Amino acid sequence: MPRTILMLPGDGIGPEIVAEAEKVLNKINDQFNLGLSFESGLVGGAAIDETDTPLPDETLEKATRADAILLGAVGGPQWDSLPMAKRPEKGLLGLRSNLELFANLRPAILYPQLASASSLKPEVVSGLDIMIVRELTGGIYFGQPRGVRELESGERQGYNTYAYTESEIRRIGRVAFEAAQQRGKKLCSVDKANVLEVTVLWREIMNDLRREYPDVELSHMYVDNAAMQLVRAPKQFDVIVTGNMFGDILSDEAAMLTGSIGMLPSASLNSEKQGMYEPCHGSAPDIAGQGIANPLATILSAAMMLRYSLNEEKAAEAIEAAVSKVLDQGLRTADIMSEGAKKVSTREMGEAVLAAL
Amino acid sequence: MPRTILMLPGDGIGPEIVAEAEKVLNKINDQFNLGLSFESGLVGGAAIDETDTPLPDETLEKATRADAILLGAVGGPQWDSLPMAKRPEKGLLGLRSNLELFANLRPAILYPQLASASSLKPEVVSGLDIMIVRELTGGIYFGQPRGVRELESGERQGYNTYAYTESEIRRIGRVAFEAAQQRGKKLCSVDKANVLEVTVLWREIMNDLRREYPDVELSHMYVDNAAMQLVRAPKQFDVIVTGNMFGDILSDEAAMLTGSIGMLPSASLNSEKQGMYEPCHGSAPDIAGQGIANPLATILSAAMMLRYSLNEEKAAEAIEAAVSKVLDQGLRTADIMSEGAKKVSTREMGEAVLAAL
Ligand SMILES: CC(C)[C@H](C(=O)O)[C@@H](O)C(=O)O
Ligand SMILES: CC(C)[C@H](C(=O)O)[C@@H](O)C(=O)O
Repeated sequence: MPRTILMLPGDGIGPEIVAEAEKVLNKINDQFNLGLSFESGLVGGAAIDETDTPLPDETLEKATRADAILLGAVGGPQWDSLPMAKRPEKGLLGLRSNLELFANLRPAILYPQLASASSLKPEVVSGLDIMIVRELTGGIYFGQPRGVRELESGERQGYNTYAYTESEIRRIGRVAFEAAQQRGKKLCSVDKANVLEVTVLWREIMNDLRREYPDVELSHMYVDNAAMQLVRAPKQFDVIVTGNMFGDILSDEAAMLTGSIGMLPSASLNSEKQGMYEPCHGSAPDIAGQGIANPLATILSAAMMLRYSLNEEKAAEAIEAAVSKVLDQGLRTADIMSEGAKKVSTREMGEAVLAAL
Repeated sequence: MPRTILMLPGDGIGPEIVAEAEKVLNKINDQFNLGLSFESGLVGGAAIDETDTPLPDETLEKATRADAILLGAVGGPQWDSLPMAKRPEKGLLGLRSNLELFANLRPAILYPQLASASSLKPEVVSGLDIMIVRELTGGIYFGQPRGVRELESGERQGYNTYAYTESEIRRIGRVAFEAAQQRGKKLCSVDKANVLEVTVLWREIMNDLRREYPDVELSHMYVDNAAMQLVRAPKQFDVIVTGNMFGDILSDEAAMLTGSIGMLPSASLNSEKQGMYEPCHGSAPDIAGQGIANPLATILSAAMMLRYSLNEEKAAEAIEAAVSKVLDQGLRTADIMSEGAKKVSTREMGEAVLAAL
């Protein structure tokens, strides 16, 4: 069965890192006879510059047809003063919502080879392996009404709406419980149920689901405490599930605990397991075009894609093993460089993974 | 001029730690001839148990009349299943909003004597001194409409509103710019202006204010990035200003960077500099009643109270010097205990501060 992958390089370092991941996917396609074919499209600032919109219809059509999408990153200072609806981020948000990619999986894993890169003490983070399950198509990111209005007093008020329905909560809850079942069987649901009504409902539905997954130990934590506990003792967590906004904050915090956010992939899935895969890091405009960005998060995102959307576990593992091997060889891009290692460029890193395959 | 301090011990470890702070305030009152008189009141779970409401009218009246309030902490598992409006937290939120305590100052300071308590590497946090200015009476904590409604489909939806007016943003912005002027002259405003309209307005107003404070260097950061940067390189920050919800999360994360949240005070001020002072930590129900809680954050909150609401800088410094002295003496409560130090109880710690005054 022929399967199509849509490549969306996007902005900043996006094109450089996606290029390396594409080489890796091409080779693995041949090696494992996966029958993948590749398309590419415009999104974000790159799309704005060419078509005046961050998510052209053509891209959305290709995305809808594709079996999976590999995205680089979007955004950059040159588009920051555009009105909200025309910003690069709307391309990303539009893809998430149009394809209903409600389940965002963000692992925070410490690679033993990179243990010293963390700003935390080794004993606090060694062996760290957390999975953050973030709801991605609801909550305050998409809630209506929203905008800036003029009050009777004449002054302006900005407003957004944080809303979740029972079914939105239930479907992300199921994904999280299932992830926990396949891992350490511990799920921590993060909310602010002592203040926000929407998260009182969140907590209630998570408690309901518990009955369907008796083998998973469910706990609840307020978001402020979770932000603290991630710093204090991150290894207490196995799977964390939370809404879109809290997930945005906590997954970035968790990723940074490892000290090597340039290593972390992510998956955004819908209920048909169609998915968009992207590195956890952003478009890093400050180093774009210099050939020094770390392509490994994108390459590992390609591995996640093979695992979750294409059901090619062996091919996924082959990529992950190759990445581990180049780390063992002491190859490091600038962001994960340490004394005694060999500093390599984006392309050299990509070539090394290819060679290790 | 006689001045009244309202003591609100609250729940959990609250009564134990407030008792020690009260002794310290009594002694400093005599030493510096401050003319303070003390009242006390019920709030939170303690108030619910006695009067069936988390913020009795009597407490609110006393609070309104008082020159300053010293609060322990509120909340605990025995009140967690009460409906939102009857929970201990509503007592705290009611005080904040009724007294219009819009400016929450939360320092995150690493005490050199406690450097090893941090989960971060010493070089990352040594000398850390950040001030987080959190808006406290607006944003999603108080936004209307809010609740849980039934949709036409029959399923329920929880919803909250995140809103800020120009004047709300401007007044917290001023507090933050002024704080920066008195410190390192760097202000970082944290928002999510790439997604949330309410924070687009936030950013616009912060940019406007810049003109009034030309000596302060203003920067902007998205909240997800701020959560990362606090872990990666917290010393890049001087003053951070942000809304109620993001401030709740980031201030707890920042506090935990020090590893000794039992040491950190906070102030919540209105435009008359009337203020409520409380430790950054919570009510810690798990250790309540055991006499082992750390009273220093509450004692340091009393010092902040003398500084900000009572204009008694010398008395404030005397308390801070006494705290520093007991740390130098090697006295530690359980939460900040380390090898070679002397473990003391809540009361012993309070007595030691008294003796050092
Ligand atoms: C770019 C931005 C809109 C996006 C988000 O907030 O979701 C990013 O921070 C992320 O986490 O993928
Ligand atoms: C207890 C709770 C309502 C409160 C808040 O969320 O503001 C607390 O976390 C705080 O930060 O003071």
